[in-house]
Amino acid sequence: MVIVMKAGATQAQIDHVTDRITELGFGVHLSRGTERTIIGVIGDERTLNPSIFEVMDGVEKTVSILPPYRLASREVQPEPTVVRVNGVKVGNQRIVIIAGPCSVESRTQLLETAHAVKEAGASMLRGGAYKPRTSPYSFQGMGLKGLEILAEARAETGLPVVTEVMAPDKVGLVAEYADVLQIGARNMQNYDLLKAVGRAHKPVLLKRGMMSTIEELLMSAEYILSNGNPDVILCERGIRTFETYTRNTTDINAIPALKQLTHLPVIGDPSHGTGKWMLVDAVARALIAAGADGLMVEVHLHPETAMSDGAQSLKPERFAELVRHVRAVAEAVGRTA
Amino acid sequence: MVIVMKAGATQAQIDHVTDRITELGFGVHLSRGTERTIIGVIGDERTLNPSIFEVMDGVEKTVSILPPYRLASREVQPEPTVVRVNGVKVGNQRIVIIAGPCSVESRTQLLETAHAVKEAGASMLRGGAYKPRTSPYSFQGMGLKGLEILAEARAETGLPVVTEVMAPDKVGLVAEYADVLQIGARNMQNYDLLKAVGRAHKPVLLKRGMMSTIEELLMSAEYILSNGNPDVILCERGIRTFETYTRNTTDINAIPALKQLTHLPVIGDPSHGTGKWMLVDAVARALIAAGADGLMVEVHLHPETAMSDGAQSLKPERFAELVRHVRAVAEAVGRTA
Amino acid sequence: MVIVMKAGATQAQIDHVTDRITELGFGVHLSRGTERTIIGVIGDERTLNPSIFEVMDGVEKTVSILPPYRLASREVQPEPTVVRVNGVKVGNQRIVIIAGPCSVESRTQLLETAHAVKEAGASMLRGGAYKPRTSPYSFQGMGLKGLEILAEARAETGLPVVTEVMAPDKVGLVAEYADVLQIGARNMQNYDLLKAVGRAHKPVLLKRGMMSTIEELLMSAEYILSNGNPDVILCERGIRTFETYTRNTTDINAIPALKQLTHLPVIGDPSHGTGKWMLVDAVARALIAAGADGLMVEVHLHPETAMSDGAQSLKPERFAELVRHVRAVAEAVGRTA
Amino acid sequence: MVIVMKAGATQAQIDHVTDRITELGFGVHLSRGTERTIIGVIGDERTLNPSIFEVMDGVEKTVSILPPYRLASREVQPEPTVVRVNGVKVGNQRIVIIAGPCSVESRTQLLETAHAVKEAGASMLRGGAYKPRTSPYSFQGMGLKGLEILAEARAETGLPVVTEVMAPDKVGLVAEYADVLQIGARNMQNYDLLKAVGRAHKPVLLKRGMMSTIEELLMSAEYILSNGNPDVILCERGIRTFETYTRNTTDINAIPALKQLTHLPVIGDPSHGTGKWMLVDAVARALIAAGADGLMVEVHLHPETAMSDGAQSLKPERFAELVRHVRAVAEAVGRTA
Repeated sequence: MVIVMKAGATQAQIDHVTDRITELGFGVHLSRGTERTIIGVIGDERTLNPSIFEVMDGVEKTVSILPPYRLASREVQPEPTVVRVNGVKVGNQRIVIIAGPCSVESRTQLLETAHAVKEAGASMLRGGAYKPRTSPYSFQGMGLKGLEILAEARAETGLPVVTEVMAPDKVGLVAEYADVLQIGARNMQNYDLLKAVGRAHKPVLLKRGMMSTIEELLMSAEYILSNGNPDVILCERGIRTFETYTRNTTDINAIPALKQLTHLPVIGDPSHGTGKWMLVDAVARALIAAGADGLMVEVHLHPETAMSDGAQSLKPERFAELVRHVRAVAEAVGRTA
Repeated sequence: MVIVMKAGATQAQIDHVTDRITELGFGVHLSRGTERTIIGVIGDERTLNPSIFEVMDGVEKTVSILPPYRLASREVQPEPTVVRVNGVKVGNQRIVIIAGPCSVESRTQLLETAHAVKEAGASMLRGGAYKPRTSPYSFQGMGLKGLEILAEARAETGLPVVTEVMAPDKVGLVAEYADVLQIGARNMQNYDLLKAVGRAHKPVLLKRGMMSTIEELLMSAEYILSNGNPDVILCERGIRTFETYTRNTTDINAIPALKQLTHLPVIGDPSHGTGKWMLVDAVARALIAAGADGLMVEVHLHPETAMSDGAQSLKPERFAELVRHVRAVAEAVGRTA
Repeated sequence: MVIVMKAGATQAQIDHVTDRITELGFGVHLSRGTERTIIGVIGDERTLNPSIFEVMDGVEKTVSILPPYRLASREVQPEPTVVRVNGVKVGNQRIVIIAGPCSVESRTQLLETAHAVKEAGASMLRGGAYKPRTSPYSFQGMGLKGLEILAEARAETGLPVVTEVMAPDKVGLVAEYADVLQIGARNMQNYDLLKAVGRAHKPVLLKRGMMSTIEELLMSAEYILSNGNPDVILCERGIRTFETYTRNTTDINAIPALKQLTHLPVIGDPSHGTGKWMLVDAVARALIAAGADGLMVEVHLHPETAMSDGAQSLKPERFAELVRHVRAVAEAVGRTA
Repeated sequence: MVIVMKAGATQAQIDHVTDRITELGFGVHLSRGTERTIIGVIGDERTLNPSIFEVMDGVEKTVSILPPYRLASREVQPEPTVVRVNGVKVGNQRIVIIAGPCSVESRTQLLETAHAVKEAGASMLRGGAYKPRTSPYSFQGMGLKGLEILAEARAETGLPVVTEVMAPDKVGLVAEYADVLQIGARNMQNYDLLKAVGRAHKPVLLKRGMMSTIEELLMSAEYILSNGNPDVILCERGIRTFETYTRNTTDINAIPALKQLTHLPVIGDPSHGTGKWMLVDAVARALIAAGADGLMVEVHLHPETAMSDGAQSLKPERFAELVRHVRAVAEAVGRTA
């Protein structure tokens, strides 16, 4: 950490800062510029609260030097993490496509969709049994019955199942049925939930919050990793901006940025990233071209009757086309699909 | 709901839309403009998923006509809700000031602070026992011990206690100690938690998420109201924008907007809204001038040693000054404090 | 400037950076932490391009220490600037209210409005002769004829006139008629225009761009000041955020922040800041409570026939009420109006 | 346009609205729902100011039905526009790569760079002679001398030249030297400038403002088109969001969205879109995968000495690698480069 003093800071103010640094067991490095004195703090700043300096008289601001995450960092672990989900490897040379409906709506719907996406080239099945909905009057998911249907679809198709868990006290139950525990965007900073999946023995797919920075996403991953679970898959799913033509703005920059900052696998969700099925294919290709390790795509047999997210869902035949397009791009960037 | 057809939509496409509307039990109202046909849906659109139309061939977009919330709306309940917390009324002519430290750090700290804020004019005490922190390596709060200290401070000072609850399975415990259950900004769309406090018998202080719209805040209030709890206090605490000089951007527009849209009381949090103690007094005055029913302010005896949020905390003497300033503004807008 | 090296930076990489700093005539201050080496650059960093270091091997990032503006800074000039516009002082103890229509639409309209706002308590008149409109098909202003009408209104009422100038080659013409040259939000970073008004001999009202940070606003003021014009009035008029209920988000934090960072007067525009006349009065009060030196408010005799911005315009009687409300708040914060 | 009345709107209020619509020469279509009356306006709403209805008693809001642009719309012109720049076609099956330094810094620098980018596969040369800089103390460009050097580079290499024009009175001069007139992001809503290039006889490259919506970009194109210049190339160059790790957020969704909404060619600028050279290659691939018609990339021989934007500039050898990568992706999506 570097502490920048105000232009007219007195020696007594500087001493007060350096005394406190020493008291806390850190080293001090003083540098007097032409207009400002700056004070370097020597030691692991991750355990320091910058506020305690920012309120001192004569201090203008503090600047962090180290990234606040450690276990998620490529500096600490240079080689990429490959997460194994039953037979499927995420973070490998081969990209992974997770597909299925937003919500499990019925046994027939899910089984038919599972077969369709498998045939089109998906390697995992998604589907929500517990649904976070903006309105209390919207369909809230089938719950346990939905989990049972997902398990049946896995038994029939062999596709591993990804499904969302929304509360710490449901982690055990969902983990009995799911192969990957999904943390939704709205829960990215639900820390009790992050701790609970950190103690679970299933891989976690952590979606970036629509209001969260890349650094905050990595800090949420750090919660899971530091609670003992090394199998975290990150997912860029669009952020909220001033643009209203699309539901979210897919942060394509985040794909190469995350691949450089962390060893964890990174996938993209072009369905939520755009909110419009007409844009999903193009953005799916872009995500893979930018280096994503996979995709998560919403597919619905009859979007016109979907109980949630129909506008961003692809019909199976369009999804099959997306897979062909994505495979061509994957090969162009030296990967397979 | 209004469904806007594309410029070249065919009669068959229009028929397909109107048939579906009728099938779902709604009325249809067709209007042919010079460039577009638009279709009005007659009935309570809150139960309709717009996606099912947006994916139909020939449809350009749908437009919602009704606000999606009902119980929170001033249309449904024109007279303001006054939330009673022990002897204190929130949403009344008299504005309410809630003050205290970000976190309960020790018994001595909290008791001293409680006495100081009471003397300065606060009418409720805040303090976090469970803390949502971005980093797993930061202080996570004292937990149950913190709740006990808060209860002791109430017994000593008579100030009702506001404290955060972060998980559904902790609502019962926190409600035993607290007078008001706080839902933090990061949990504004943690729906399991909203349902749980909706079933509790204590008033709820619902903070706006840092990237949530005014409408989404009201929808989260709707979750609590529709689960049976009528006592919801809304809190504007700053939203995330591109500006980085301040921690958040206090959305001052939201104060009169919320007062017009809903009957629920609305308070402001200038500490989180700015993130800098040097700006707290000015923004506190602004919130009251704009019509807020109260304030929530972070106060710390020694911000230089605070375990969280020191940079935005006021020392007791500066808080006392803020109360004096705020009282003058409250009177200028026809209120008392 | 501080240059942060990567974790594994070599001595050769560090030497390369320090050699370049010395070569450019700056001093070097090296500090080795436990995980990173950081290099302080001693001298006036305002003339240094940080990019030249950011691209060097082994460099992680650079951090600016000094604010990039100088003439606009309170460090350089601690006492507040008071801008004199004919008899009116801006930045003084007395707050200033500028009012009038968005556009000059006709002689009758403007003269009637000028009298009405004067009677209600305005101390300056606003009105656009050249209008920046999103659509080429919208009314673009009356141009020269509009300027003449503004001058006539001044002659009749004695109110100084504020009007927008949109192009460098129009500055001379507009300065012949106007008392204050307004730079609109969309032109805040139109540098040729800033230079041109910097060479003019009339005060400038500089509106914050809807996409601009506080620092960028001050840098645009710096363009005007460094071209020789000391009379700059800053105007907060709302920024663009994800919130769509209001046209913009009034950045109330910016009022006290600017008052602390700069000596220039700061006013607020609640009409553009909200976009809805129902919110203007409340936000006007808030701006004054937060410490603004004045307001700029859109007033229209018949908003139902306004050629631009009707939805955010007040009728004269509502404006008169706003002035009464604002005066009460001004007195509560120790000012007059 | 659709006008939504408030829940309790009276018949007199409804009549007032419909009378005004009729008075303005539009048709009226009334629809009474269960909770609201809505009024359709039949006719070309592009010439209507919605504000005049929004201020009427009993009106809740207005909703636009038609896109506000016409000439830029694919509805009006379904076939794609191909812009011809000397021999180069933009908007064709073959993607176009524009490369060069941020600023022209010297004759040698530019000529060497021009040869290097040509050899690597660029089909046009970029370079700024007039530079919009945030600070008045930064290098402002070589001006006329820079234009002469650009013309010399074209003569030597045959590459058409793209350069920025910042003021209406400079359009004539810049058009004498440049093959494409660039409008920078900060000037996207400088309407006097848009009108001036609309009257010029050179193609225009219009960069999206960093906080402008897709619709506003198309409205700025409409200014140019409606002033007589049909040759407009749109450029997505990143928008401003809350994310600070990157300089801007490349809005990848905008690429397919624009290709669907308009017939104009669309290119991407991964240099400004990311601000970090380490991310440029990945995002360049993504832009092409998403359907962009070309790229604009900053290349500098020695980024360590660049007078602007060095941190996002590629060295020639890295640019050559980017061209190879982009070609592979272009072929994967059925194009050439």
